[in-house]
Amino acid sequence: MFKRILIANRGEIAMRILRCCQEMGIETVLACSAEDMDSLPAQFATKRVCIGPPAAAKSYLNPEAVVQAAISFQCEAVHPGYGFLSENADFASLCEEHGILFIGPSSEMIRMMGDKQSARALMKKHGVPVVPGSDGILKDWKEAAEIARKVGYPVLLKATAGGGGRGMRTAYDESEIQSAYESAQAEALSAFGDGSLYLEKLILHPHHIEVQILGDSRGHIVHLGERDCSLQRRNQKLLEEAPARILKPRQREALHRAALRAAKAVHYRSAGTVEFVLDREGNFYFIEMNTRIQVEHPVTEMITGVDLIREQIRIAAGLELSCRQSDISFSGHAIECRINAENPAKGFAPCPGDISFLHFPAGKGVRVESALYNGSRVSPWYDSMIAKVIVHAPGRLEAIRKMRVALEEMTVEGIDTNLEFLYLLMFNPDYLSGHVDTGFLEKDAEAIIRWGEESRKKA
Amino acid sequence: MFKRILIANRGEIAMRILRCCQEMGIETVLACSAEDMDSLPAQFATKRVCIGPPAAAKSYLNPEAVVQAAISFQCEAVHPGYGFLSENADFASLCEEHGILFIGPSSEMIRMMGDKQSARALMKKHGVPVVPGSDGILKDWKEAAEIARKVGYPVLLKATAGGGGRGMRTAYDESEIQSAYESAQAEALSAFGDGSLYLEKLILHPHHIEVQILGDSRGHIVHLGERDCSLQRRNQKLLEEAPARILKPRQREALHRAALRAAKAVHYRSAGTVEFVLDREGNFYFIEMNTRIQVEHPVTEMITGVDLIREQIRIAAGLELSCRQSDISFSGHAIECRINAENPAKGFAPCPGDISFLHFPAGKGVRVESALYNGSRVSPWYDSMIAKVIVHAPGRLEAIRKMRVALEEMTVEGIDTNLEFLYLLMFNPDYLSGHVDTGFLEKDAEAIIRWGEESRKKA
Repeated sequence: MFKRILIANRGEIAMRILRCCQEMGIETVLACSAEDMDSLPAQFATKRVCIGPPAAAKSYLNPEAVVQAAISFQCEAVHPGYGFLSENADFASLCEEHGILFIGPSSEMIRMMGDKQSARALMKKHGVPVVPGSDGILKDWKEAAEIARKVGYPVLLKATAGGGGRGMRTAYDESEIQSAYESAQAEALSAFGDGSLYLEKLILHPHHIEVQILGDSRGHIVHLGERDCSLQRRNQKLLEEAPARILKPRQREALHRAALRAAKAVHYRSAGTVEFVLDREGNFYFIEMNTRIQVEHPVTEMITGVDLIREQIRIAAGLELSCRQSDISFSGHAIECRINAENPAKGFAPCPGDISFLHFPAGKGVRVESALYNGSRVSPWYDSMIAKVIVHAPGRLEAIRKMRVALEEMTVEGIDTNLEFLYLLMFNPDYLSGHVDTGFLEKDAEAIIRWGEESRKKA
Repeated sequence: MFKRILIANRGEIAMRILRCCQEMGIETVLACSAEDMDSLPAQFATKRVCIGPPAAAKSYLNPEAVVQAAISFQCEAVHPGYGFLSENADFASLCEEHGILFIGPSSEMIRMMGDKQSARALMKKHGVPVVPGSDGILKDWKEAAEIARKVGYPVLLKATAGGGGRGMRTAYDESEIQSAYESAQAEALSAFGDGSLYLEKLILHPHHIEVQILGDSRGHIVHLGERDCSLQRRNQKLLEEAPARILKPRQREALHRAALRAAKAVHYRSAGTVEFVLDREGNFYFIEMNTRIQVEHPVTEMITGVDLIREQIRIAAGLELSCRQSDISFSGHAIECRINAENPAKGFAPCPGDISFLHFPAGKGVRVESALYNGSRVSPWYDSMIAKVIVHAPGRLEAIRKMRVALEEMTVEGIDTNLEFLYLLMFNPDYLSGHVDTGFLEKDAEAIIRWGEESRKKA
């Protein structure tokens, strides 16, 4: 096992990895920015090292600085957490070049899965369902119309060079396809100098469902069940749960099988997530594979008991998975809420600042992951997520009730948070029924906020 | 289900019950002393009511005040927690008389189990092994000698009217039996006006092992495995764990069967604990049955997933147990440490006071039960236990490592605590080997404290 690991991250995930390393008897070096030198993880790590100024681009996102810190402190491995450099293939390469183990898959795997079009093609080849569409670049609008007729409207025309929503158009029926094609192409040409387009069926009102995967270097691959992460705001997940209530047993099995097929196709190593969308008819389609630990990994830990960070470290050290598929059983229901320093009533604007009083919920089946402490500071430099509250109970309704009690108990004074918003969400009839899709929060966040304001006026 | 419950307790167990009630949608009224009107549970309960001055004898131990509070606030049931009135048969009777459900067994059952001699006789009758000894009052020292010869020395001569160690003598061999008998009798006569004695074999270096039981009013009785609570100081448990490492599978089965037999013999209802001592030869003997929830119940919850407080409330409401024996499975190893406001270096003297900074450990498999918050006060009026840290991991060594990390992270400033003592204990070779008996802390606490002091000097 490793003697010393560099942790190239901050906040709650740094604490999560630190605690795990300490339990495993591994020394830790925390690579942090100048802003974070007095953070809870910096105090908790065996050693801390400053890798740059507060701006993440010059510290947490600086591959050379991180690798240099690992070399200086003789760390055998680097845990990148999530975000920052965790899915940066060049960083993984750089680690490999310097003989430092990157705790995650190979740089090659990260690169392969990072190219969404080639990942899609690979998955399709291995029988993993992908969103129906063209097999590559479209010749012209007529080919687009032909494929659209086959896969069914609405369809999305996307520039291969696209990004940020540019060079993208929706066609709801055949009458729109030509103009959609032409305007997407024109926009793509002017924006990227490349007018190549491809076509995908637009999945309406999808659920976002993902499957947790673990693979070791001996070729063992297991899944740890799925998570429903449909509750998102601007592509940021807000709440995740496991298992996914919407799945019927047969669908669930098919989904797990597809995820295993995806992971086996690429001989996946480390912890990873195979993400799918589920349409209203119950069809699911691969969208991408995340080659890192995810924010929402604790919900899976709650229902399986498996320590995913520990497995990541063991796998990186060349050890076998500590569990086979037949050892993994699923029990109860888990929900995670992301507590953000933000003001929902002001368009969810981030609210960094000093915490004057802090009290976390606790008790049976309640887990909190956070790097906050009384008197700590929420930095304006980084992500606004300050804590995760995870609950586990025998059933979904009991878990929701437990979450209500936990959110009610949690107290953060000095800054604004989305605690009340999440609490209100726990009473929302659509959420309770379990039928909210990825569009729910875009549509209903306002109504939830208003409901809260009205209730407060009445009280 | 109940609409409203009165909670007649304080501190961490009040929080534990409050959270559970809130999750079940039950309103809560917290009966607290004047000292506790601003406590965390008092702030968390639906309502709070003062039942008397700080002195427990006039508040938490005052049956009339508690029952009156329950009546005034129209509570259908009272949860007594542990300690205070939880095993007071008269209090349970008083509740029954006023039509208030006492969340626990019947007053009759509490009374029966509270009389240790009659409980012992009843258990013996039902084939539950009890400590060998006389079947009742001894005629004279010759009868004592005869029984002692049969059960083997050393033996304990105990006054039936005794208590607090008075009217009690040990005889290590036959030469001591006459004088032990006579001096015990003389002391009992002068102290209690009753010289009746009985005899029990003295179990040397025992392990204290107890089995958690649940029974409902429909006659279903299940066990939830055992706990090893051998780490005690002056009969106060300091650390509990489950399962008991010392038991071999056959012993464990026999112990569980004996506990079930004990509970079935009395048609036990609610949560209860059957306590045994285990001698060096692996024989176990019933010592008593606790007719309440115990401080250490979370270790059982950790390895079974069953919510014992919830079951207590369900049972009191006349519902069936939510699990049968075949539904209960055991997973991993759990350890609980009791964090006390006390100074081990000063003979474990209690150290109440104001908490200037507080930080609890957290993360996967770590649970904290406490009523502390930042800036709260540890009252000199009550027990010095301020928090329980419970960990759960796949194996015992992993649980010990997790406990080390948790204790290291936990920070309580402003008062003295036994945190360092517990941390050192987690490195003690005897504790690690799992072979510490109930005499361990009496013998080795000093050495552990010295070891800590020396380590600190070196550092």
